[in-house]
Amino acid sequence: LSAAPFRYVHEVRFDEVDAAGVVYFARFFGWCHDAMAAMLAELEGGYQRLVSERSLGLPAAHVEADFAAPLRFGDSVRIEVTVERIGESSVTLLFRIERARDSLSVATVRHVVVLTDLAAFRPVPMTDDLRILLAKHIPE
Amino acid sequence: LSAAPFRYVHEVRFDEVDAAGVVYFARFFGWCHDAMAAMLAELEGGYQRLVSERSLGLPAAHVEADFAAPLRFGDSVRIEVTVERIGESSVTLLFRIERARDSLSVATVRHVVVLTDLAAFRPVPMTDDLRILLAKHIPE
Amino acid sequence: LSAAPFRYVHEVRFDEVDAAGVVYFARFFGWCHDAMAAMLAELEGGYQRLVSERSLGLPAAHVEADFAAPLRFGDSVRIEVTVERIGESSVTLLFRIERARDSLSVATVRHVVVLTDLAAFRPVPMTDDLRILLAKHIPE
Amino acid sequence: LSAAPFRYVHEVRFDEVDAAGVVYFARFFGWCHDAMAAMLAELEGGYQRLVSERSLGLPAAHVEADFAAPLRFGDSVRIEVTVERIGESSVTLLFRIERARDSLSVATVRHVVVLTDLAAFRPVPMTDDLRILLAKHIPE
Repeated sequence: LSAAPFRYVHEVRFDEVDAAGVVYFARFFGWCHDAMAAMLAELEGGYQRLVSERSLGLPAAHVEADFAAPLRFGDSVRIEVTVERIGESSVTLLFRIERARDSLSVATVRHVVVLTDLAAFRPVPMTDDLRILLAKHIPE
Repeated sequence: LSAAPFRYVHEVRFDEVDAAGVVYFARFFGWCHDAMAAMLAELEGGYQRLVSERSLGLPAAHVEADFAAPLRFGDSVRIEVTVERIGESSVTLLFRIERARDSLSVATVRHVVVLTDLAAFRPVPMTDDLRILLAKHIPE
Repeated sequence: LSAAPFRYVHEVRFDEVDAAGVVYFARFFGWCHDAMAAMLAELEGGYQRLVSERSLGLPAAHVEADFAAPLRFGDSVRIEVTVERIGESSVTLLFRIERARDSLSVATVRHVVVLTDLAAFRPVPMTDDLRILLAKHIPE
Repeated sequence: LSAAPFRYVHEVRFDEVDAAGVVYFARFFGWCHDAMAAMLAELEGGYQRLVSERSLGLPAAHVEADFAAPLRFGDSVRIEVTVERIGESSVTLLFRIERARDSLSVATVRHVVVLTDLAAFRPVPMTDDLRILLAKHIPE
Protein backbone atom coordinates (compact mmCIF):
# COMPACT_ATOMS: atom_id res chain seq x y z
CA LEU A 1 0.00 0.00 0.00
CA SER A 2 1.53 3.26 -1.13
CA ALA A 3 1.61 6.45 0.94
CA ALA A 4 -0.21 9.40 -0.55
CA PRO A 5 -0.54 13.08 0.18
CA PHE A 6 -3.81 14.23 1.68
CA ARG A 7 -5.65 16.65 -0.58
CA TYR A 8 -7.75 19.59 0.55
CA VAL A 9 -9.52 22.31 -1.41
CA HIS A 10 -10.34 25.84 -0.32
CA GLU A 11 -12.19 28.57 -2.17
CA VAL A 12 -10.99 32.07 -1.28
CA ARG A 13 -13.72 33.85 0.67
CA PHE A 14 -14.89 37.43 0.11
CA ASP A 15 -13.45 38.51 3.46
CA GLU A 16 -10.06 36.84 3.09
CA VAL A 17 -8.47 39.59 1.06
CA ASP A 18 -6.84 42.66 2.58
CA ALA A 19 -6.52 46.33 1.68
CA ALA A 20 -3.94 45.42 -0.98
CA GLY A 21 -6.62 43.38 -2.79
CA VAL A 22 -4.92 40.02 -2.32
CA VAL A 23 -5.42 37.24 0.21
CA TYR A 24 -4.06 38.31 3.61
CA PHE A 25 -0.97 36.22 4.31
CA ALA A 26 -2.13 35.02 7.73
CA ARG A 27 -5.12 33.28 6.11
CA PHE A 28 -2.87 30.64 4.58
CA PHE A 29 -1.96 29.31 8.03
CA GLY A 30 -5.60 28.84 8.93
CA TRP A 31 -6.22 26.93 5.69
CA CYS A 32 -3.29 24.64 6.49
CA HIS A 33 -4.71 24.05 9.94
CA ASP A 34 -8.08 23.21 8.39
CA ALA A 35 -6.38 20.83 5.95
CA MET A 36 -4.75 19.07 8.92
CA ALA A 37 -8.13 18.89 10.68
CA ALA A 38 -9.68 17.36 7.56
CA MET A 39 -6.83 14.85 7.32
CA LEU A 40 -7.57 13.81 10.92
CA ALA A 41 -11.24 13.17 10.15
CA GLU A 42 -10.30 9.53 9.69
CA LEU A 43 -9.58 9.21 13.43
CA GLU A 44 -12.54 7.88 15.38
CA GLY A 45 -14.56 11.02 16.05
CA GLY A 46 -12.07 13.04 14.02
CA TYR A 47 -10.12 16.08 15.16
CA GLN A 48 -13.20 17.27 17.02
CA ARG A 49 -13.29 14.34 19.43
CA LEU A 50 -9.51 14.46 19.82
CA VAL A 51 -9.87 18.01 21.14
CA SER A 52 -13.24 17.94 22.88
CA GLU A 53 -13.30 14.47 24.40
CA ARG A 54 -9.72 13.26 24.60
CA SER A 55 -8.50 16.78 25.50
CA LEU A 56 -5.60 16.48 23.10
CA GLY A 57 -4.53 19.15 20.68
CA LEU A 58 -1.85 19.81 18.10
CA PRO A 59 -0.68 23.38 18.70
CA ALA A 60 2.04 24.72 16.44
CA ALA A 61 5.56 24.90 17.85
CA HIS A 62 7.15 26.09 14.63
CA VAL A 63 5.78 27.50 11.40
CA GLU A 64 7.54 28.53 8.22
CA ALA A 65 6.17 29.64 4.91
CA ASP A 66 7.32 30.82 1.52
CA PHE A 67 4.89 32.80 -0.56
CA ALA A 68 5.39 32.70 -4.33
CA ALA A 69 2.33 34.38 -5.83
CA PRO A 70 -0.67 36.36 -4.62
CA LEU A 71 -4.21 34.99 -4.56
CA ARG A 72 -7.33 36.99 -5.25
CA PHE A 73 -11.04 36.70 -4.54
CA GLY A 74 -12.45 34.10 -6.88
CA ASP A 75 -9.37 31.88 -6.74
CA SER A 76 -9.49 28.36 -5.33
CA VAL A 77 -6.52 26.50 -3.95
CA ARG A 78 -5.54 22.87 -3.71
CA ILE A 79 -3.50 21.98 -0.65
CA GLU A 80 -1.43 18.82 -0.65
CA VAL A 81 -0.45 17.67 2.83
CA THR A 82 2.43 15.32 3.49
CA VAL A 83 4.00 14.20 6.76
CA GLU A 84 7.73 14.87 6.81
CA ARG A 85 8.55 13.50 10.23
CA ILE A 86 6.84 11.89 13.21
CA GLY A 87 8.74 12.44 16.45
CA GLU A 88 8.10 11.43 20.04
CA SER A 89 5.35 14.08 20.40
CA SER A 90 5.81 16.24 17.33
CA VAL A 91 4.77 15.99 13.71
CA THR A 92 6.18 17.96 10.80
CA LEU A 93 3.57 18.67 8.17
CA LEU A 94 4.32 20.06 4.73
CA PHE A 95 1.59 21.90 2.85
CA ARG A 96 2.00 22.63 -0.85
CA ILE A 97 -0.57 25.18 -1.94
CA GLU A 98 -1.39 25.70 -5.58
CA ARG A 99 -3.98 27.77 -7.42
CA ALA A 100 -6.63 25.44 -8.73
CA ARG A 101 -7.22 26.91 -12.18
CA ASP A 102 -3.61 26.64 -13.40
CA SER A 103 -1.72 24.65 -10.72
CA LEU A 104 0.51 27.66 -10.06
CA SER A 105 2.45 27.11 -6.87
CA VAL A 106 1.45 29.93 -4.53
CA ALA A 107 2.94 28.89 -1.21
CA THR A 108 4.77 26.21 0.71
CA VAL A 109 4.05 26.01 4.41
CA ARG A 110 5.57 23.81 7.09
CA HIS A 111 3.98 23.30 10.51
CA VAL A 112 5.66 21.48 13.38
CA VAL A 113 2.84 20.62 15.74
CA VAL A 114 3.11 18.94 19.12
CA LEU A 115 0.62 16.49 20.56
CA THR A 116 -0.42 18.26 23.74
CA ASP A 117 -2.54 17.48 26.77
CA LEU A 118 -4.79 20.55 26.67
CA ALA A 119 -5.55 20.51 30.41
CA ALA A 120 -1.91 20.62 31.52
CA PHE A 121 -0.69 22.10 28.23
CA ARG A 122 2.19 19.61 28.15
CA PRO A 123 3.50 17.43 25.29
CA VAL A 124 2.38 13.81 25.39
CA PRO A 125 3.73 10.82 23.44
CA MET A 126 2.12 10.28 20.05
CA THR A 127 -0.92 8.03 20.28
CA ASP A 128 -1.12 4.88 18.17
CA ASP A 129 -4.13 5.96 16.15
CA LEU A 130 -2.51 9.27 15.24
CA ARG A 131 0.81 7.62 14.37
CA ILE A 132 -0.88 5.10 12.06
CA LEU A 133 -2.93 7.77 10.33
CA LEU A 134 -0.01 10.17 9.94
CA ALA A 135 2.29 7.46 8.62
CA LYS A 136 -0.04 7.02 5.64
CA HIS A 137 0.99 10.44 4.42
CA ILE A 138 4.78 10.08 4.66
CA PRO A 139 6.12 10.18 1.10
CA GLU A 140 8.16 7.13 0.17
CA LEU B 1 -24.06 62.30 38.89
CA SER B 2 -24.94 62.32 35.22
CA ALA B 3 -25.01 59.22 33.04
CA ALA B 4 -22.67 59.25 30.06
CA PRO B 5 -22.09 57.09 27.01
CA PHE B 6 -18.98 54.97 27.03
CA ARG B 7 -16.57 55.88 24.23
CA TYR B 8 -14.37 53.49 22.31
CA VAL B 9 -12.05 54.03 19.36
CA HIS B 10 -11.06 51.55 16.67
CA GLU B 11 -8.66 51.97 13.77
CA VAL B 12 -9.62 49.89 10.72
CA ARG B 13 -7.05 47.15 10.26
CA PHE B 14 -5.47 46.14 6.95
CA ASP B 15 -7.26 42.79 7.00
CA GLU B 16 -10.73 44.12 7.86
CA VAL B 17 -11.68 45.07 4.33
CA ASP B 18 -13.22 42.66 1.84
CA ALA B 19 -13.01 42.06 -1.88
CA ALA B 20 -15.23 45.12 -2.46
CA GLY B 21 -12.54 47.29 -0.87
CA VAL B 22 -14.62 48.35 2.13
CA VAL B 23 -14.79 47.08 5.69
CA TYR B 24 -16.54 43.69 5.79
CA PHE B 25 -19.91 44.20 7.49
CA ALA B 26 -19.42 41.43 10.06
CA ARG B 27 -16.40 43.28 11.50
CA PHE B 28 -18.66 45.95 12.99
CA PHE B 29 -20.22 43.41 15.35
CA GLY B 30 -16.83 42.42 16.69
CA TRP B 31 -15.92 46.07 17.30
CA CYS B 32 -19.16 46.53 19.25
CA HIS B 33 -18.34 43.46 21.31
CA ASP B 34 -14.87 44.87 22.00
CA ALA B 35 -16.42 48.21 23.00
CA MET B 36 -18.66 46.35 25.48
CA ALA B 37 -15.62 44.48 26.83
CA ALA B 38 -13.77 47.78 27.29
CA MET B 39 -16.79 49.27 29.06
CA LEU B 40 -16.73 46.31 31.48
CA ALA B 41 -13.07 46.89 32.33
CA GLU B 42 -14.30 48.83 35.34
CA LEU B 43 -15.62 45.61 36.93
CA GLU B 44 -13.14 44.07 39.34
CA GLY B 45 -10.93 42.01 37.03
CA GLY B 46 -12.85 43.31 34.04
CA TYR B 47 -14.63 41.28 31.39
CA GLN B 48 -11.77 38.81 31.48
CA ARG B 49 -12.35 37.75 35.08
CA LEU B 50 -16.11 37.72 34.52
CA VAL B 51 -15.59 35.09 31.82
CA SER B 52 -12.56 33.18 33.06
CA GLU B 53 -13.08 33.15 36.82
CA ARG B 54 -16.77 33.79 37.43
CA SER B 55 -17.74 31.71 34.39
CA LEU B 56 -20.26 34.31 33.30
CA GLY B 57 -20.66 35.60 29.79
CA LEU B 58 -22.84 37.97 27.81
CA PRO B 59 -23.71 36.13 24.59
CA ALA B 60 -25.91 37.93 22.09
CA ALA B 61 -29.57 36.94 21.92
CA HIS B 62 -30.51 39.56 19.38
CA VAL B 63 -28.54 41.82 17.08
CA GLU B 64 -29.67 44.49 14.68
CA ALA B 65 -27.70 46.95 12.63
CA ASP B 66 -28.20 49.69 10.09
CA PHE B 67 -25.29 50.57 7.87
CA ALA B 68 -25.20 54.11 6.47
CA ALA B 69 -21.79 54.51 4.85
CA PRO B 70 -18.82 52.31 3.96
CA LEU B 71 -15.50 52.43 5.76
CA ARG B 72 -12.10 51.98 4.17
CA PHE B 73 -8.61 51.06 5.25
CA GLY B 74 -7.14 54.09 6.97
CA ASP B 75 -10.41 55.14 8.59
CA SER B 76 -10.86 55.23 12.34
CA VAL B 77 -14.18 55.00 14.11
CA ARG B 78 -15.55 56.31 17.37
CA ILE B 79 -18.12 54.07 19.02
CA GLU B 80 -20.50 55.52 21.59
CA VAL B 81 -22.11 52.89 23.80
CA THR B 82 -25.28 53.51 25.74
CA VAL B 83 -27.43 51.11 27.74
CA GLU B 84 -31.04 51.17 26.60
CA ARG B 85 -32.51 48.66 29.01
CA ILE B 86 -31.44 46.42 31.85
CA GLY B 87 -33.75 43.43 32.29
CA GLU B 88 -33.78 40.48 34.67
CA SER B 89 -30.86 38.84 32.80
CA SER B 90 -30.62 40.84 29.61
CA VAL B 91 -29.08 44.14 28.64
CA THR B 92 -29.81 46.16 25.51
CA LEU B 93 -26.77 48.02 24.27
CA LEU B 94 -26.85 50.68 21.59
CA PHE B 95 -23.69 51.41 19.62
CA ARG B 96 -23.44 54.55 17.50
CA ILE B 97 -20.49 54.28 15.16
CA GLU B 98 -19.06 57.32 13.44
CA ARG B 99 -16.03 57.93 11.25
CA ALA B 100 -13.45 59.77 13.31
CA ARG B 101 -12.21 62.29 10.75
CA ASP B 102 -15.61 63.87 9.99
CA SER B 103 -18.07 62.39 12.52
CA LEU B 104 -20.03 60.84 9.66
CA SER B 105 -22.50 58.33 11.08
CA VAL B 106 -21.58 54.99 9.54
CA ALA B 107 -23.66 52.50 11.51
CA THR B 108 -26.03 52.00 14.40
CA VAL B 109 -25.91 48.61 16.08
CA ARG B 110 -28.05 47.19 18.86
CA HIS B 111 -27.05 44.09 20.85
CA VAL B 112 -29.32 42.37 23.34
CA VAL B 113 -27.00 40.26 25.45
CA VAL B 114 -27.96 37.86 28.21
CA LEU B 115 -25.97 37.27 31.37
CA THR B 116 -25.26 33.57 31.12
CA ASP B 117 -23.74 30.89 33.30
CA LEU B 118 -21.21 29.55 30.80
CA ALA B 119 -21.03 26.07 32.35
CA ALA B 120 -24.77 25.38 32.12
CA PHE B 121 -25.31 27.93 29.35
CA ARG B 122 -28.37 29.27 31.14
CA PRO B 123 -29.44 32.86 31.86
CA VAL B 124 -28.74 34.07 35.38
CA PRO B 125 -30.07 37.18 37.17
CA MET B 126 -28.03 40.33 36.63
CA THR B 127 -25.31 40.70 39.25
CA ASP B 128 -25.12 43.84 41.36
CA ASP B 129 -21.74 44.97 40.09
CA LEU B 130 -22.85 44.66 36.47
CA ARG B 131 -26.16 46.42 37.14
CA ILE B 132 -24.40 49.34 38.82
CA LEU B 133 -21.84 49.69 36.05
CA LEU B 134 -24.40 49.39 33.25
CA ALA B 135 -26.74 51.90 34.89
CA LYS B 136 -24.04 54.54 34.52
CA HIS B 137 -24.51 54.40 30.77
CA ILE B 138 -28.30 54.72 30.59
CA PRO B 139 -29.08 58.07 28.96
CA GLU B 140 -31.23 60.36 31.09
CA LEU C 1 -41.80 25.24 -11.32
CA SER C 2 -41.81 25.65 -7.57
CA ALA C 3 -39.59 28.08 -5.66
CA ALA C 4 -37.22 26.50 -3.21
CA PRO C 5 -34.90 27.68 -0.47
CA PHE C 6 -31.19 27.55 -1.24
CA ARG C 7 -29.31 25.23 1.09
CA TYR C 8 -25.80 25.71 2.39
CA VAL C 9 -23.74 23.70 4.86
CA HIS C 10 -20.96 24.93 7.13
CA GLU C 11 -18.79 22.97 9.53
CA VAL C 12 -17.71 25.02 12.56
CA ARG C 13 -13.99 25.67 12.35
CA PHE C 14 -11.50 25.31 15.20
CA ASP C 15 -10.93 29.08 15.30
CA GLU C 16 -14.59 30.11 15.20
CA VAL C 17 -15.22 29.70 18.91
CA ASP C 18 -14.48 32.39 21.47
CA ALA C 19 -13.24 32.52 25.06
CA ALA C 20 -16.67 31.35 26.24
CA GLY C 21 -16.17 28.10 24.30
CA VAL C 22 -19.01 28.68 21.85
CA VAL C 23 -19.10 30.02 18.31
CA TYR C 24 -18.47 33.79 18.34
CA PHE C 25 -21.72 35.50 17.37
CA ALA C 26 -20.20 37.58 14.58
CA ARG C 27 -19.22 34.40 12.71
CA PHE C 28 -22.86 33.69 11.86
CA PHE C 29 -23.04 36.81 9.68
CA GLY C 30 -20.06 35.68 7.65
CA TRP C 31 -21.63 32.27 7.10
CA CYS C 32 -24.82 33.94 5.86
CA HIS C 33 -22.77 36.05 3.49
CA ASP C 34 -21.03 32.91 2.23
CA ALA C 35 -24.41 31.22 1.77
CA MET C 36 -25.54 34.18 -0.34
CA ALA C 37 -22.32 33.99 -2.38
CA ALA C 38 -22.93 30.27 -2.97
CA MET C 39 -26.51 30.98 -4.01
CA LEU C 40 -25.18 33.46 -6.58
CA ALA C 41 -22.83 30.88 -8.09
CA GLU C 42 -25.53 30.24 -10.66
CA LEU C 43 -24.96 33.70 -12.17
CA GLU C 44 -22.58 33.64 -15.11
CA GLY C 45 -19.19 33.84 -13.43
CA GLY C 46 -20.88 33.75 -10.04
CA TYR C 47 -20.55 36.25 -7.22
CA GLN C 48 -16.86 36.54 -8.04
CA ARG C 49 -17.39 37.97 -11.52
CA LEU C 50 -20.21 40.18 -10.25
CA VAL C 51 -17.72 41.82 -7.88
CA SER C 52 -14.45 41.64 -9.83
CA GLU C 53 -15.59 42.22 -13.40
CA ARG C 54 -18.97 43.91 -13.24
CA SER C 55 -17.88 45.96 -10.18
CA LEU C 56 -21.19 45.29 -8.47
CA GLY C 57 -21.58 44.28 -4.87
CA LEU C 58 -24.29 43.55 -2.35
CA PRO C 59 -23.25 45.32 0.85
CA ALA C 60 -25.55 45.02 3.85
CA ALA C 61 -27.78 47.97 4.66
CA HIS C 62 -29.59 46.25 7.50
CA VAL C 63 -28.93 43.12 9.50
CA GLU C 64 -30.94 41.49 12.24
CA ALA C 65 -30.45 38.22 14.04
CA ASP C 66 -31.98 36.14 16.79
CA PHE C 67 -29.78 33.57 18.44
CA ALA C 68 -31.55 30.61 20.03
CA ALA C 69 -28.80 28.15 20.99
CA PRO C 70 -25.01 28.09 21.14
CA LEU C 71 -22.84 26.14 18.72
CA ARG C 72 -19.60 24.40 19.60
CA PHE C 73 -16.54 23.14 17.78
CA GLY C 74 -17.53 19.94 16.02
CA ASP C 75 -21.01 21.14 15.15
CA SER C 76 -22.16 21.58 11.57
CA VAL C 77 -24.96 23.85 10.47
CA ARG C 78 -27.44 23.82 7.63
CA ILE C 79 -28.45 27.25 6.37
CA GLU C 80 -31.66 27.65 4.42
CA VAL C 81 -31.79 30.86 2.40
CA THR C 82 -35.01 32.38 1.15
CA VAL C 83 -35.66 35.70 -0.54
CA GLU C 84 -38.29 37.71 1.28
CA ARG C 85 -38.42 40.75 -0.95
CA ILE C 86 -36.81 42.12 -4.09
CA GLY C 87 -36.92 45.92 -4.25
CA GLU C 88 -35.65 48.44 -6.75
CA SER C 89 -32.05 47.92 -5.61
CA SER C 90 -32.43 45.97 -2.40
CA VAL C 91 -32.98 42.34 -1.53
CA THR C 92 -34.14 40.95 1.79
CA LEU C 93 -32.63 37.57 2.53
CA LEU C 94 -33.76 35.29 5.34
CA PHE C 95 -31.32 32.71 6.69
CA ARG C 96 -32.58 29.92 8.93
CA ILE C 97 -29.66 28.23 10.62
CA GLU C 98 -30.01 24.84 12.23
CA ARG C 99 -27.57 22.42 13.81
CA ALA C 100 -27.06 19.54 11.42
CA ARG C 101 -27.08 16.62 13.85
CA ASP C 102 -30.51 17.30 15.35
CA SER C 103 -32.07 20.10 13.27
CA LEU C 104 -32.12 22.35 16.35
CA SER C 105 -32.83 25.91 15.27
CA VAL C 106 -29.84 27.95 16.39
CA ALA C 107 -30.38 31.29 14.71
CA THR C 108 -32.49 33.30 12.31
CA VAL C 109 -30.71 36.04 10.42
CA ARG C 110 -32.08 38.63 8.01
CA HIS C 111 -29.86 40.66 5.67
CA VAL C 112 -31.09 43.55 3.57
CA VAL C 113 -28.45 44.00 0.92
CA VAL C 114 -28.31 46.68 -1.77
CA LEU C 115 -27.02 46.19 -5.28
CA THR C 116 -24.22 48.73 -5.40
CA ASP C 117 -21.86 50.10 -8.01
CA LEU C 118 -18.60 49.51 -6.17
CA ALA C 119 -16.71 52.31 -7.95
CA ALA C 120 -19.17 55.06 -7.03
CA PHE C 121 -20.57 53.16 -4.04
CA ARG C 122 -24.10 54.02 -5.11
CA PRO C 123 -27.22 51.82 -5.36
CA VAL C 124 -28.07 50.63 -8.86
CA PRO C 125 -31.30 49.06 -10.15
CA MET C 126 -31.47 45.29 -9.81
CA THR C 127 -30.07 43.55 -12.89
CA ASP C 128 -32.18 41.05 -14.79
CA ASP C 129 -29.97 38.07 -14.13
CA LEU C 130 -29.95 38.75 -10.39
CA ARG C 131 -33.70 39.32 -10.30
CA ILE C 132 -34.40 36.04 -12.08
CA LEU C 133 -32.04 34.08 -9.85
CA LEU C 134 -33.34 35.65 -6.63
CA ALA C 135 -36.97 35.12 -7.61
CA LYS C 136 -36.36 31.38 -7.60
CA HIS C 137 -35.92 31.51 -3.87
CA ILE C 138 -39.03 33.50 -2.94
CA PRO C 139 -41.32 31.17 -0.97
CA GLU C 140 -44.78 30.77 -2.48
CA LEU D 1 21.50 58.61 17.69
CA SER D 2 20.97 55.06 18.85
CA ALA D 3 18.78 52.54 17.06
CA ALA D 4 15.89 51.19 19.10
CA PRO D 5 13.29 48.46 18.69
CA PHE D 6 9.78 49.58 17.96
CA ARG D 7 7.33 48.56 20.68
CA TYR D 8 3.73 47.56 20.19
CA VAL D 9 1.12 46.30 22.64
CA HIS D 10 -1.83 44.03 21.95
CA GLU D 11 -4.55 42.82 24.29
CA VAL D 12 -5.87 39.35 23.41
CA ARG D 13 -9.42 39.68 22.16
CA PHE D 14 -12.34 37.45 23.17
CA ASP D 15 -12.53 35.96 19.67
CA GLU D 16 -8.80 35.26 19.25
CA VAL D 17 -8.80 31.97 21.13
CA ASP D 18 -9.64 28.64 19.54
CA ALA D 19 -11.41 25.46 20.58
CA ALA D 20 -8.33 24.48 22.63
CA GLY D 21 -8.86 27.58 24.78
CA VAL D 22 -5.63 29.30 23.77
CA VAL D 23 -4.87 31.99 21.21
CA TYR D 24 -5.11 30.56 17.68
CA PHE D 25 -1.60 30.44 16.26
CA ALA D 26 -2.44 32.32 13.06
CA ARG D 27 -3.44 35.38 15.11
CA PHE D 28 0.19 36.06 16.00
CA PHE D 29 1.02 36.81 12.36
CA GLY D 30 -1.72 39.41 12.18
CA TRP D 31 -0.43 41.09 15.34
CA CYS D 32 3.05 41.24 13.82
CA HIS D 33 1.62 42.79 10.68
CA ASP D 34 -0.21 45.36 12.81
CA ALA D 35 3.01 46.09 14.71
CA MET D 36 4.75 46.74 11.38
CA ALA D 37 1.87 49.01 10.30
CA ALA D 38 2.18 50.96 13.57
CA MET D 39 5.94 51.26 13.07
CA LEU D 40 5.28 52.76 9.63
CA ALA D 41 2.94 55.40 11.06
CA GLU D 42 5.94 57.73 11.08
CA LEU D 43 5.94 57.79 7.26
CA GLU D 44 4.05 60.74 5.85
CA GLY D 45 0.47 59.48 5.80
CA GLY D 46 1.61 56.25 7.41
CA TYR D 47 1.11 52.74 6.13
CA GLN D 48 -2.36 53.72 5.00
CA ARG D 49 -1.17 56.29 2.46
CA LEU D 50 1.62 53.97 1.35
CA VAL D 51 -1.01 51.41 0.37
CA SER D 52 -3.94 53.58 -0.68
CA GLU D 53 -2.23 56.51 -2.39
CA ARG D 54 1.24 55.35 -3.37
CA SER D 55 -0.07 51.88 -4.26
CA LEU D 56 2.85 50.23 -2.51
CA GLY D 57 2.58 47.31 -0.15
CA LEU D 58 4.79 45.01 1.87
CA PRO D 59 3.45 41.50 1.30
CA ALA D 60 5.22 38.65 3.05
CA ALA D 61 7.58 36.51 1.00
CA HIS D 62 8.75 34.40 3.91
CA VAL D 63 7.47 33.87 7.43
CA GLU D 64 8.85 31.80 10.26
CA ALA D 65 7.78 31.51 13.85
CA ASP D 66 8.63 29.65 17.02
CA PHE D 67 5.96 29.36 19.65
CA ALA D 68 7.16 28.92 23.23
CA ALA D 69 4.06 29.30 25.40
CA PRO D 70 0.30 29.57 24.94
CA LEU D 71 -1.66 32.76 25.49
CA ARG D 72 -5.14 32.99 26.91
CA PHE D 73 -8.00 35.45 26.91
CA GLY D 74 -7.09 38.24 29.32
CA ASP D 75 -3.40 38.20 28.42
CA SER D 76 -1.69 41.17 26.86
CA VAL D 77 1.47 40.99 24.80
CA ARG D 78 4.34 43.34 24.13
CA ILE D 79 5.86 43.03 20.68
CA GLU D 80 9.37 44.33 20.07
CA VAL D 81 10.13 44.90 16.38
CA THR D 82 13.64 45.11 15.03
CA VAL D 83 14.88 45.28 11.45
CA GLU D 84 17.39 42.54 10.72
CA ARG D 85 18.16 43.36 7.12
CA ILE D 86 17.20 45.87 4.44
CA GLY D 87 17.73 44.52 0.93
CA GLU D 88 17.15 45.95 -2.53
CA SER D 89 13.36 45.47 -2.17
CA SER D 90 13.03 43.29 0.88
CA VAL D 91 13.08 43.85 4.61
CA THR D 92 13.57 41.24 7.31
CA LEU D 93 11.62 42.05 10.44
CA LEU D 94 12.06 40.27 13.75
CA PHE D 95 9.20 40.29 16.24
CA ARG D 96 9.80 39.21 19.83
CA ILE D 97 6.50 38.63 21.57
CA GLU D 98 6.25 38.47 25.34
CA ARG D 99 3.37 38.23 27.77
CA ALA D 100 2.94 41.61 29.42
CA ARG D 101 2.29 40.54 33.01
CA ASP D 102 5.50 38.54 33.46
CA SER D 103 7.64 39.18 30.35
CA LEU D 104 7.44 35.48 29.47
CA SER D 105 8.67 34.98 25.93
CA VAL D 106 5.76 33.48 24.02
CA ALA D 107 6.89 33.62 20.41
CA THR D 108 9.54 34.81 18.01
CA VAL D 109 8.37 35.63 14.50
CA ARG D 110 10.35 36.67 11.44
CA HIS D 111 8.73 38.23 8.37
CA VAL D 112 10.55 38.89 5.13
CA VAL D 113 8.40 41.42 3.31
CA VAL D 114 8.96 42.82 -0.15
CA LEU D 115 8.18 46.36 -1.24
CA THR D 116 5.71 45.76 -4.03
CA ASP D 117 3.93 47.85 -6.62
CA LEU D 118 0.38 46.71 -5.88
CA ALA D 119 -0.94 47.43 -9.39
CA ALA D 120 1.63 45.27 -11.19
CA PHE D 121 2.35 43.15 -8.11
CA ARG D 122 6.08 43.42 -8.76
CA PRO D 123 8.96 44.21 -6.38
CA VAL D 124 10.22 47.77 -6.49
CA PRO D 125 13.42 49.24 -5.03
CA MET D 126 13.16 50.41 -1.44
CA THR D 127 12.08 54.04 -1.22
CA ASP D 128 14.21 56.54 0.68
CA ASP D 129 11.62 57.35 3.32
CA LEU D 130 11.09 53.66 4.10
CA ARG D 131 14.83 52.96 4.18
CA ILE D 132 15.46 55.82 6.61
CA LEU D 133 12.60 54.80 8.89
CA LEU D 134 13.54 51.10 8.87
CA ALA D 135 17.20 51.83 9.53
CA LYS D 136 16.24 53.36 12.87
CA HIS D 137 15.24 49.94 14.06
CA ILE D 138 18.35 47.98 13.08
CA PRO D 139 20.04 46.87 16.30
CA GLU D 140 23.62 48.06 16.62
